[in-house]
Amino acid sequence: MLTVTDEVRDALASGRPVVALESTIISHGMPYPQNVEMARTVEGIVRDGGAVPATIAVLHGRPTIGLSTDDLELLASDESVIKVSLRDLPYVVSRGLHGATTVASTMRLAALAGISVFVTGGLGGVHRGGETSYDVSADLTELATTSVAVVCAGVKSILDIGLTLEKLETLGVPVLGYGTDEFPSFFSRSSGFGAPMRVDSPAEVAALMRAKWDLGLAGGVVVANPIPAESEIPADEIGAIIDRALADMDSLGITGKDATPYLLGRIVEISDGASLAANIALVEHNARLGAAIAQAHARSA
Amino acid sequence: MLTVTDEVRDALASGRPVVALESTIISHGMPYPQNVEMARTVEGIVRDGGAVPATIAVLHGRPTIGLSTDDLELLASDESVIKVSLRDLPYVVSRGLHGATTVASTMRLAALAGISVFVTGGLGGVHRGGETSYDVSADLTELATTSVAVVCAGVKSILDIGLTLEKLETLGVPVLGYGTDEFPSFFSRSSGFGAPMRVDSPAEVAALMRAKWDLGLAGGVVVANPIPAESEIPADEIGAIIDRALADMDSLGITGKDATPYLLGRIVEISDGASLAANIALVEHNARLGAAIAQAHARSA
Amino acid sequence: MLTVTDEVRDALASGRPVVALESTIISHGMPYPQNVEMARTVEGIVRDGGAVPATIAVLHGRPTIGLSTDDLELLASDESVIKVSLRDLPYVVSRGLHGATTVASTMRLAALAGISVFVTGGLGGVHRGGETSYDVSADLTELATTSVAVVCAGVKSILDIGLTLEKLETLGVPVLGYGTDEFPSFFSRSSGFGAPMRVDSPAEVAALMRAKWDLGLAGGVVVANPIPAESEIPADEIGAIIDRALADMDSLGITGKDATPYLLGRIVEISDGASLAANIALVEHNARLGAAIAQAHARSA
Ligand SMILES: [Mn+2]
Ligand SMILES: [Mn+2]
Ligand SMILES: [Mn+2]
Repeated sequence: MLTVTDEVRDALASGRPVVALESTIISHGMPYPQNVEMARTVEGIVRDGGAVPATIAVLHGRPTIGLSTDDLELLASDESVIKVSLRDLPYVVSRGLHGATTVASTMRLAALAGISVFVTGGLGGVHRGGETSYDVSADLTELATTSVAVVCAGVKSILDIGLTLEKLETLGVPVLGYGTDEFPSFFSRSSGFGAPMRVDSPAEVAALMRAKWDLGLAGGVVVANPIPAESEIPADEIGAIIDRALADMDSLGITGKDATPYLLGRIVEISDGASLAANIALVEHNARLGAAIAQAHARSA
Repeated sequence: MLTVTDEVRDALASGRPVVALESTIISHGMPYPQNVEMARTVEGIVRDGGAVPATIAVLHGRPTIGLSTDDLELLASDESVIKVSLRDLPYVVSRGLHGATTVASTMRLAALAGISVFVTGGLGGVHRGGETSYDVSADLTELATTSVAVVCAGVKSILDIGLTLEKLETLGVPVLGYGTDEFPSFFSRSSGFGAPMRVDSPAEVAALMRAKWDLGLAGGVVVANPIPAESEIPADEIGAIIDRALADMDSLGITGKDATPYLLGRIVEISDGASLAANIALVEHNARLGAAIAQAHARSA
Repeated sequence: MLTVTDEVRDALASGRPVVALESTIISHGMPYPQNVEMARTVEGIVRDGGAVPATIAVLHGRPTIGLSTDDLELLASDESVIKVSLRDLPYVVSRGLHGATTVASTMRLAALAGISVFVTGGLGGVHRGGETSYDVSADLTELATTSVAVVCAGVKSILDIGLTLEKLETLGVPVLGYGTDEFPSFFSRSSGFGAPMRVDSPAEVAALMRAKWDLGLAGGVVVANPIPAESEIPADEIGAIIDRALADMDSLGITGKDATPYLLGRIVEISDGASLAANIALVEHNARLGAAIAQAHARSA
């Protein structure tokens, strides 16, 4: 049921490091052509880090692990590409459609292919007001059960960080601050919330992954990697921008799966592109760490 | 541990279509004798549709897949029959009691028996006020993990549709509008909430089921089949009736597992039987669709 | 990955009764030296009841099933012992640290070792205000999936009992009142909430466990055993003490995993030790019942 490129298949078969990458960030997270440039750059960073990149999407109804240059271009520019969370996978597959995978569906497809490390920008989580709206990303459900380490810069900036951390604790998911005692907040290094655990090297992350899965504790690991200091947007500055974007969304009545793409686009507009530069910087930074973790994990086999 | 009739066992062994049916609707969802008449009629509709009906209950402590006429009569009229959700199954089984199974426990027993399609009236979900009461049906938990397609007319009318749809999204459950872009509201075809995905034929549902389970994505599929137009009760009319029933329940202090049976009975009273006629019509309508989906699913094996 | 003592291993191999015991109650639930005395007494009660006690902790990074006298002393007095819920297990194991296991992590390690009965004081659950704070113990998640019977005196007194019971229902977990129709409230026999099901003997509990797991219904069973009448603290008396402790915690700004240990300690102080005596009495009472249930369960194999 999966199409896996020869390169990824060979790497997995011989125990060499592989890093999964999602595709919603390409199709619904950034404007064209920055999105496809980012996607290619990130694949290059993973390669330079000694791992094989495996960008994941659904193409013509086939879950595909490892994309060609043409595939990336299609995802970055084709309007027919659907945002596919876990619940949407059977629909897109059975209809032969193109789909860009979210954190949840990328995690699942990565696990099905045998990939243990996945790099993204920010996790989904509990939306602001989620305690009354029940708007909680399927990413959290997936982290509870699917054995993949997810390298991110925290949760998407538009979410409620505190509620998301509580939910992850309830679900038994280890959340690691990488080189920090504070959980980062995507565009900023600080959030006011402590990181539940701290690690300081790829080897420490890999050892924790081994300990978890060797014990038989299925489920994901969150590696929260703060944005580099030179790229961050101060918390109060970005906070005001996000509040304005949320207000704009409310007045337009946008909800559901369109909410996140709208907000990310609106934040780019309001910030005059500063948020896009920060977003690209943090994804590249995560790709470097993800490659190092995949290497350390492969070595520890 | 399961008693399965020869007819159901043979059908499953030879890959012929089988449709599971629940029993709480018989014992706790409708007055006697309309309940047992409905049960027999629905079994006949499934048969006419080319599938084997398998009504599920616990009899003398044995989970039973496929009921005799006497079994149906017992469930419809015996006061000792307990409403059995998933948590209650071990109790009823270990004590040798009779139990009528809810959506959650019917789904589980159907899956244990190897049945993939289940027809009911309405799903359980998040109760109105569930964001503060935490009153959320185990049906949703079951849909997250048990691989059965559930044909229904939406969620039970007394629930909060919006919160229920959010929860199903978080849990990664595909929710299909059958022949509609709008999620139906049990007694009415409209609800104001969009259906997350739309399908228009039994073959499309069966293809989606195959895609999901062949990929290894365990869990249920909701097929929301709107009540026929000629049988629906306009949304504002039934809304006022439900509000009155909810107010009556509050003033009587009824809560927990007694709430749904009380409300369904009270709505029948207030509506002078109109809700009962609509309920029967929608279950029969779902049985027709369920048989067709089971056929399409069997053919696609 | 597990260190299991010869005594426990032999008992499990030959089908003799074993009772798991947690260690957070030792390290973070009671002051020294009452904690280590309680731990030894409880092990003795289990032995007198004809079962092998298996206190569980992580020592030098090894999950350990069955502790020596020195191990208990270390857990009771060493400041470096970390409170380990499910999410923390991989961290503590990969770093070679000492950890005291909560209900969730003890359940999981017990299940991995093949132990079916676990005795504790009180379950974690939904914290007061949990509907807005999302502060919900991982114990509930664990009960949903891990097949161990947990003997307790209800949920920890500082929690919201009603919301916790609703969550357990949603998750499909059987909650049994042992010899009572009312769900107990830890320090008191009454709570105002009904027990969802009632059992009256160890054999009935064992039969229910068999029925559940033989049917393939994975997940835990809660056996709520009311504190003995002679040891209980009247509900209104302990209620006022808890409210004062909660207010003190709020004014100190204590949250997260430190909340429960702080509150339990503060309640001991405010009650002048009465709560400690009650806590010890109820754990000993649960140990007696746990041994009897483990015996009945072993006999029914
Ligand atoms: Mn959402
Ligand atoms: Mn309920
Ligand atoms: Mn907590």
